[in-house]
Amino acid sequence: MSTYQFDIAVIGAGPGGVEAALYAGRKGLKAALVSNTSIGGRAVWSSLLPSKAWLALAEKIDGLRRLEGMGAHAGKHELSLEQLRRRIGEQSRLAFGIRLKELEDAGVFFFFGDGRIIEAHKLEVSSAEEPTRTITAGNIIIASGSGPRFLPDARPNKDRIYAPKIAAALPEIPPSLIVAGGGVTGTEYAYAFAALGSRVTVLQSGAQLLPRMDAEVAGAFRAYLEGHYDIRFHAGEAIASMRQEGDKVFATSIRGSVFEADYGFIAIGRVPDLSFFEPGQLPLALTEEKMVNTDAFGRTSIPHIYAVGDVTGTPMTANRAAMQARVAVQHILDGDGSKLLPAHFIEAAYTNPPIAQIGDMGPEAGAEFISKPFSSLLKANIMGEAEGLMKLKVRKADGLILGAAGFGAHFADVMGIVQVAMNNDIPYGKIREIPLAHPSISEILTG
Amino acid sequence: MSTYQFDIAVIGAGPGGVEAALYAGRKGLKAALVSNTSIGGRAVWSSLLPSKAWLALAEKIDGLRRLEGMGAHAGKHELSLEQLRRRIGEQSRLAFGIRLKELEDAGVFFFFGDGRIIEAHKLEVSSAEEPTRTITAGNIIIASGSGPRFLPDARPNKDRIYAPKIAAALPEIPPSLIVAGGGVTGTEYAYAFAALGSRVTVLQSGAQLLPRMDAEVAGAFRAYLEGHYDIRFHAGEAIASMRQEGDKVFATSIRGSVFEADYGFIAIGRVPDLSFFEPGQLPLALTEEKMVNTDAFGRTSIPHIYAVGDVTGTPMTANRAAMQARVAVQHILDGDGSKLLPAHFIEAAYTNPPIAQIGDMGPEAGAEFISKPFSSLLKANIMGEAEGLMKLKVRKADGLILGAAGFGAHFADVMGIVQVAMNNDIPYGKIREIPLAHPSISEILTG
Repeated sequence: MSTYQFDIAVIGAGPGGVEAALYAGRKGLKAALVSNTSIGGRAVWSSLLPSKAWLALAEKIDGLRRLEGMGAHAGKHELSLEQLRRRIGEQSRLAFGIRLKELEDAGVFFFFGDGRIIEAHKLEVSSAEEPTRTITAGNIIIASGSGPRFLPDARPNKDRIYAPKIAAALPEIPPSLIVAGGGVTGTEYAYAFAALGSRVTVLQSGAQLLPRMDAEVAGAFRAYLEGHYDIRFHAGEAIASMRQEGDKVFATSIRGSVFEADYGFIAIGRVPDLSFFEPGQLPLALTEEKMVNTDAFGRTSIPHIYAVGDVTGTPMTANRAAMQARVAVQHILDGDGSKLLPAHFIEAAYTNPPIAQIGDMGPEAGAEFISKPFSSLLKANIMGEAEGLMKLKVRKADGLILGAAGFGAHFADVMGIVQVAMNNDIPYGKIREIPLAHPSISEILTG
Repeated sequence: MSTYQFDIAVIGAGPGGVEAALYAGRKGLKAALVSNTSIGGRAVWSSLLPSKAWLALAEKIDGLRRLEGMGAHAGKHELSLEQLRRRIGEQSRLAFGIRLKELEDAGVFFFFGDGRIIEAHKLEVSSAEEPTRTITAGNIIIASGSGPRFLPDARPNKDRIYAPKIAAALPEIPPSLIVAGGGVTGTEYAYAFAALGSRVTVLQSGAQLLPRMDAEVAGAFRAYLEGHYDIRFHAGEAIASMRQEGDKVFATSIRGSVFEADYGFIAIGRVPDLSFFEPGQLPLALTEEKMVNTDAFGRTSIPHIYAVGDVTGTPMTANRAAMQARVAVQHILDGDGSKLLPAHFIEAAYTNPPIAQIGDMGPEAGAEFISKPFSSLLKANIMGEAEGLMKLKVRKADGLILGAAGFGAHFADVMGIVQVAMNNDIPYGKIREIPLAHPSISEILTG
């Protein structure tokens, strides 16, 4: 058994793990990246990236519709799932290549296999191809991510019941589709399939689509989707079972409602991947929801073991994971004096238009809400994409932005302006007075 | 003759004039807006807005091309200039309506006619429809804008030689087109026609396309356009004459080169509109280039007369005009203690992708340049729009951003982040460490 020694060993090569290893390598630390998936992790190879290829196609097809009235009549298009599948493969390899080069440039060592933490500073990497290797490290960062959640009676069946990971295996665009789940993933795929021509039924467990978002913005977004696509949302219909009979799929909610369609799609959440340790063997504290318990710097209950990304809880987004990764590495470098603190970050569904939120949008004494519709923007109108709403929460006393939410063209990019302002205590008045590019979508923040 | 009295009288209802009147009205000043064009000015009715409708159409047609390979085959589209013309009218009326409502809400008074400054606090408004009216005002803001520049031997002829203002009157998409001028307007229309199928020849006066932009970025953008469209740029071929013979247009450069195409298009700059005064009568100082001479607050040589926008010089952009307008009004309110100072602003050509710049990109001791290609971004790749380049100039001593330039998808919006950072002294390191939305184009600023 070979033994290797590192400053930092990272388990998991998804967005959090890659960022942790990269950041550590760039700071001059000797870093190991341990993963049983190829670089990019599940995000690149089965969840985030494939969904974005579907969404990019849906967005371009949307563009065809918008062409009418702008100065052209679009011809009839033909979808090619074969082409889409090929593209997902190409894009995954491209993302892999970009990350690999960055990791190599940062001097990161890569270990392929299942990583398992044995004790505070030691982990083992095992795989079918190589003898088990032991890594010792000054610090370990757990970034093992999450996998899709299914129910005993609601899981993909390799025929007409699908999940995001295997969406590309669909033989056709479903004439009709039941999407179980009204979170980010369910909403993204519901939009994508609706834009590509499916009649979509979404079963959401709670009262609100995208329950983490501002209720008014989420409600307006839902109304937008229902108004523009053949898509219907059913609130309070958490799925109990999904089964196939012949060529039909039937979904039954916990309330007993039954829905029927040609295909089913399950996106009811993700569960953390805890395969990196044996609960009896390592005294790692978990939360009630079986997430790894961490503090703001990512420290777990065991000194020198940190955790970042999905394994630490919701929201399970790539940019939260990346931020946590940097915060953890910086804390390893600087200790409690670290100046890199957890920042406000954006949660988004990358539909077209995207919907995004940052900060807390709940009612609050001393705060005011400012709303602006995208229909007031020259740029949105001229693009033919005037649907959308921006909502800001501002503290009256000092004008600081406490939160923002909205949906509309380019909104995930525009939110970067809000994010920079929030993370640097720039009051809204200072954004408002700046002449942003005209005409641009960023002007939604001015005037 | 009626006499009216105001705190501020603004001449010109384009982006600068409307913003000045709005800002003044919102601050509680009694403001008059004097214009011989409808609200929106030439920008809305003949230059900025129509060009953006052409560009929006071109961008959507670009989208059809990009569809191939993403999971669909686009059908053959048909252009409809009739539809585009109708849309330009609709969009102009929409922009007019939005601005009108804002002005009304701000309590601004509107005077239709030619505004002429008689003396420091007095101007006359004359029109064919109404008797001449006299307005007295504590302060006057000149925002009379600019009109297109032509040469004696190079001007629109209502047949095959066009200018931006009358582009919508084209009977067809030109099979081939000579665009005289490699500035923002020439570049925007050259791109639009090329994307819509024209074979385009651009005659630029200087060595560089978009001479105000960073040379490396402008060069890469030119190469992108030449690589993706049937478009050729000819440097150092400033136009001397453009004439039509039969169904052909011939352009001769000052060098003597002759170019031939089916149509010609002249976009060689704009000249300030100085019709608001009689040089002998009012001692208003002009620059050598016949622009109104102003200081940083917009003050002219005559106390209480300010000037903003195109009439004060280049770059003749709407957002520079709007910023100058607010700075001038705030200075009127607060005097030299005004805290609203001229801000860094974005210059852009709204092609697809857009190209934009802020600040100074010249070489400078103690500054470093950071470049990043759009091909390194997941979002750009997945959108099928991976062409682009971002370049930042950062002062090594304190990490402050001194300038930025680039082209790429959504770049005019993303530049808003840089603009907020520059105007609030946020060092680049603070932008870089923030986890922007993933995947998004704004990530071009991180990593």
